[in-house]
Amino acid sequence: VQAVAIASSTDTHAELILRAAAARKAIFCEKPVDLDIGRAREVQAAVTKARVPCLIGFQRRYDPTFAAVKRRLDAGEIGETEVLCITSRDPAPPPIAYIERSGGIFKDQLIHDFDVCRWILGDEAQTVYAAASCLVDAAISDAGDADTTAVTIRTRKGRLCQINTSRRAAYGYDQRFEVLGSGGMLEAGNHRPTEVSWHRAGAISVDPPEAFFLERYRAAYAEEMIHFAAVLRGETQPRTSIEDGVRALEIAEAATRSSKEGRVVAL
Amino acid sequence: VQAVAIASSTDTHAELILRAAAARKAIFCEKPVDLDIGRAREVQAAVTKARVPCLIGFQRRYDPTFAAVKRRLDAGEIGETEVLCITSRDPAPPPIAYIERSGGIFKDQLIHDFDVCRWILGDEAQTVYAAASCLVDAAISDAGDADTTAVTIRTRKGRLCQINTSRRAAYGYDQRFEVLGSGGMLEAGNHRPTEVSWHRAGAISVDPPEAFFLERYRAAYAEEMIHFAAVLRGETQPRTSIEDGVRALEIAEAATRSSKEGRVVAL
Amino acid sequence: VQAVAIASSTDTHAELILRAAAARKAIFCEKPVDLDIGRAREVQAAVTKARVPCLIGFQRRYDPTFAAVKRRLDAGEIGETEVLCITSRDPAPPPIAYIERSGGIFKDQLIHDFDVCRWILGDEAQTVYAAASCLVDAAISDAGDADTTAVTIRTRKGRLCQINTSRRAAYGYDQRFEVLGSGGMLEAGNHRPTEVSWHRAGAISVDPPEAFFLERYRAAYAEEMIHFAAVLRGETQPRTSIEDGVRALEIAEAATRSSKEGRVVAL
Amino acid sequence: VQAVAIASSTDTHAELILRAAAARKAIFCEKPVDLDIGRAREVQAAVTKARVPCLIGFQRRYDPTFAAVKRRLDAGEIGETEVLCITSRDPAPPPIAYIERSGGIFKDQLIHDFDVCRWILGDEAQTVYAAASCLVDAAISDAGDADTTAVTIRTRKGRLCQINTSRRAAYGYDQRFEVLGSGGMLEAGNHRPTEVSWHRAGAISVDPPEAFFLERYRAAYAEEMIHFAAVLRGETQPRTSIEDGVRALEIAEAATRSSKEGRVVAL
Repeated sequence: VQAVAIASSTDTHAELILRAAAARKAIFCEKPVDLDIGRAREVQAAVTKARVPCLIGFQRRYDPTFAAVKRRLDAGEIGETEVLCITSRDPAPPPIAYIERSGGIFKDQLIHDFDVCRWILGDEAQTVYAAASCLVDAAISDAGDADTTAVTIRTRKGRLCQINTSRRAAYGYDQRFEVLGSGGMLEAGNHRPTEVSWHRAGAISVDPPEAFFLERYRAAYAEEMIHFAAVLRGETQPRTSIEDGVRALEIAEAATRSSKEGRVVAL
Repeated sequence: VQAVAIASSTDTHAELILRAAAARKAIFCEKPVDLDIGRAREVQAAVTKARVPCLIGFQRRYDPTFAAVKRRLDAGEIGETEVLCITSRDPAPPPIAYIERSGGIFKDQLIHDFDVCRWILGDEAQTVYAAASCLVDAAISDAGDADTTAVTIRTRKGRLCQINTSRRAAYGYDQRFEVLGSGGMLEAGNHRPTEVSWHRAGAISVDPPEAFFLERYRAAYAEEMIHFAAVLRGETQPRTSIEDGVRALEIAEAATRSSKEGRVVAL
Repeated sequence: VQAVAIASSTDTHAELILRAAAARKAIFCEKPVDLDIGRAREVQAAVTKARVPCLIGFQRRYDPTFAAVKRRLDAGEIGETEVLCITSRDPAPPPIAYIERSGGIFKDQLIHDFDVCRWILGDEAQTVYAAASCLVDAAISDAGDADTTAVTIRTRKGRLCQINTSRRAAYGYDQRFEVLGSGGMLEAGNHRPTEVSWHRAGAISVDPPEAFFLERYRAAYAEEMIHFAAVLRGETQPRTSIEDGVRALEIAEAATRSSKEGRVVAL
Repeated sequence: VQAVAIASSTDTHAELILRAAAARKAIFCEKPVDLDIGRAREVQAAVTKARVPCLIGFQRRYDPTFAAVKRRLDAGEIGETEVLCITSRDPAPPPIAYIERSGGIFKDQLIHDFDVCRWILGDEAQTVYAAASCLVDAAISDAGDADTTAVTIRTRKGRLCQINTSRRAAYGYDQRFEVLGSGGMLEAGNHRPTEVSWHRAGAISVDPPEAFFLERYRAAYAEEMIHFAAVLRGETQPRTSIEDGVRALEIAEAATRSSKEGRVVAL
């Protein structure tokens, strides 16, 4: 056994990473590292000490469309990066039982967006402001969580990121972002199941986005594993490291506090 | 009176142009010059002899989108022009009484497309093949006409033009063309009333095209009159001359014959 | 004289409205009413007392695309309104001399977006958070202003609005918004000068948005005046009233404070 | 051995199918059955007599986008089918050596389009007219072939099909069609590698279509094999039968003759 892939429930991640690190195995683990930031840092320390590769499953970075935007940003196609707007909406909320153990919408759903923010802006969050409402289902509010959020991150260089999320988009899984730079804008759009358009009296219509993450990120999951295999062969370092996992969790923690206390939180 | 604008019924065009030319007035006349090609040539000769400007109302050449394609073709954006595909569909057929006196679908509806073909390809038709069916309304067939056509024009340089038309497009007035060249393609799309899109379960939809020619070619009609005013001021020559009117009619005549006799017709 | 149209510089608006109201004239005035909220309220009181119609020039409400979204929202096409995301970017910053007397980006540029927010969400702002950076031109910062902002408004009903603006979009005047509701999303896209697309090795490209507000809102300005004429004929009340002008200014004031003090501001 | 998959050069197809049929093996064979129509019919007779399933590799029918259009047509989404327009362009011509043995552009390239025509229109060709030019490379003309064609097929029911093809589209592999029906239009668009759009001064651009058939029809090839496996399990009949192979070849033969003789050919 050369490597361990951890795709079990979140509360088992930390323990399993620690054991794999102790056994000097390369690690792939789904996000998040842990819901508790202190615990996540402990795990990070152990992995660092063990000097094993540890790849956290932020699969969006491997999505062909998202990855192309990143490459083109790095190639300077729009000059200096200034603003990032992320739209991230699930088709429908998960069961309340799931929500109750999820760590809240920021650690569960937006952690992916926080990772995209750091990756695309190439800068660390300095302040976070998170407004959150419960507009989809009152039971989510009863469970102490929100279902609709509007987050603003200001980075150290003054770059701005806006994230809007919802647990429900009636038209499907909406996963887009756009980056404004000094020389233009790069936009990452949704994928669609087919390229059919239907023209009839009153409207021309096309397919809504792919149904949910298994469809939308099919290519991304494959690319992620191809990358992990390259890591195992020693050809490269993990592009989504345990440090990325901890950093995204820090933003999620700050966003949760911001939302609960109704104020801006500094990191 | 410096100029005469003729927008009366087709059977009055020839006579009115002749009288305006005799009176040395500048002329604007809606297409077609006449349904009879011999008569149209007589009128052309009279206008030429009178040396008065005569602008035929092929308004499509003044449409901002179509005109932009022409400019960009001339600027060499796609290299040598090779193929033109025109889609030209009315939202609904006119009354049978109109059809009976229209001169047939080729002289009435497609004459605009034949003009676009000559203008965009910058070459004259050598052969025409027109397939026609009556699929929309049997009364059109009873009136001796067709409502659905597929025309192929081969020019002297071997360029190819395909035109597909229908008297009925349930989704609106469909007016598009695309030009393939050695270096790429330029496409002229439909205009829409608004830029709204509606995302819901099952479909994302946008507005269908503008309803009919008055909406679709509103800007074109204005540009045409602005151009006519420039002609009257002596600043320029008519961009859509009586020769253009006669040439388009010649193709319409050939297409009518082709369709009736089921064979390719040379010009 | 039945009506007065005020399109002079901002510092003259209040005085001219007061004099027109005193003379019992119907009033059209470009936004903003005044840069000072107290002064704007005085003007509002005088207009109310004089019982003259007063239409404030929030022309975006008259834009065919924006107005269609509003109509379709009201028709229930996406159920309950939840989230509004506005993208509002100028092609290039105005001269520094203009910026110095503009009242700042929130009162000058975003006041339109604040009006759109109130209009589309059909609810009043409860809290405002505005992050602002100077990323385009350091001279703007020297003038005490910002050029890039990210604003979050939470309404009384908990609806969320995110606005992102910039004084510079290299690709043109970017004026879009999208509304998420319980049953779907309505999106208002940019207008383009033509519907040409160019296909060549490496890319398919279409026109960027209209250059700036005179082109983008040409139809809106015309509709606005048609509406004002209907108001003058006594057929309807102003759709963009002086109250709307004052309310948008209140949000702009709060956003300015939020941005300067780095905290959430309640209205 | 239960089945034989034939993907060798065209001149071996007939012989290999005959031997597989004689051995009572199920057969998958790439198109065309043979370049000679008489020989193709012999092979069809042998397969029929042997009662073995034989699936011809018209992979386009398995493409998710094309297949969705067919399903939606059959579901009546646009009423009665009237007109089909196919755009089918390769990115670049094959080597001359390939062209010389290809059987000509109609049997080599358009045979797929002829199959799509029969499949989508659900009707047999009655007349074919094919105009062809050599506009891409004079060496193709020297080899006795054309590189640019415009084909019109009229079916027994009077439905019309226009096909435009080229051996070269500088922007990539262009594979689209649209179907006009009594109640609207269904359009099958190109697939793109990513959903990135790039906004900059002068243009907004997106990816051109997939590079060539291996990329464009990746999903189609997989679906085709899944279908073949279902045929082998006895669950279904081949959706693209040897009869389909022969019928498409008949149209290709007629088109070749039409093009060479400059006349309409009846089937």
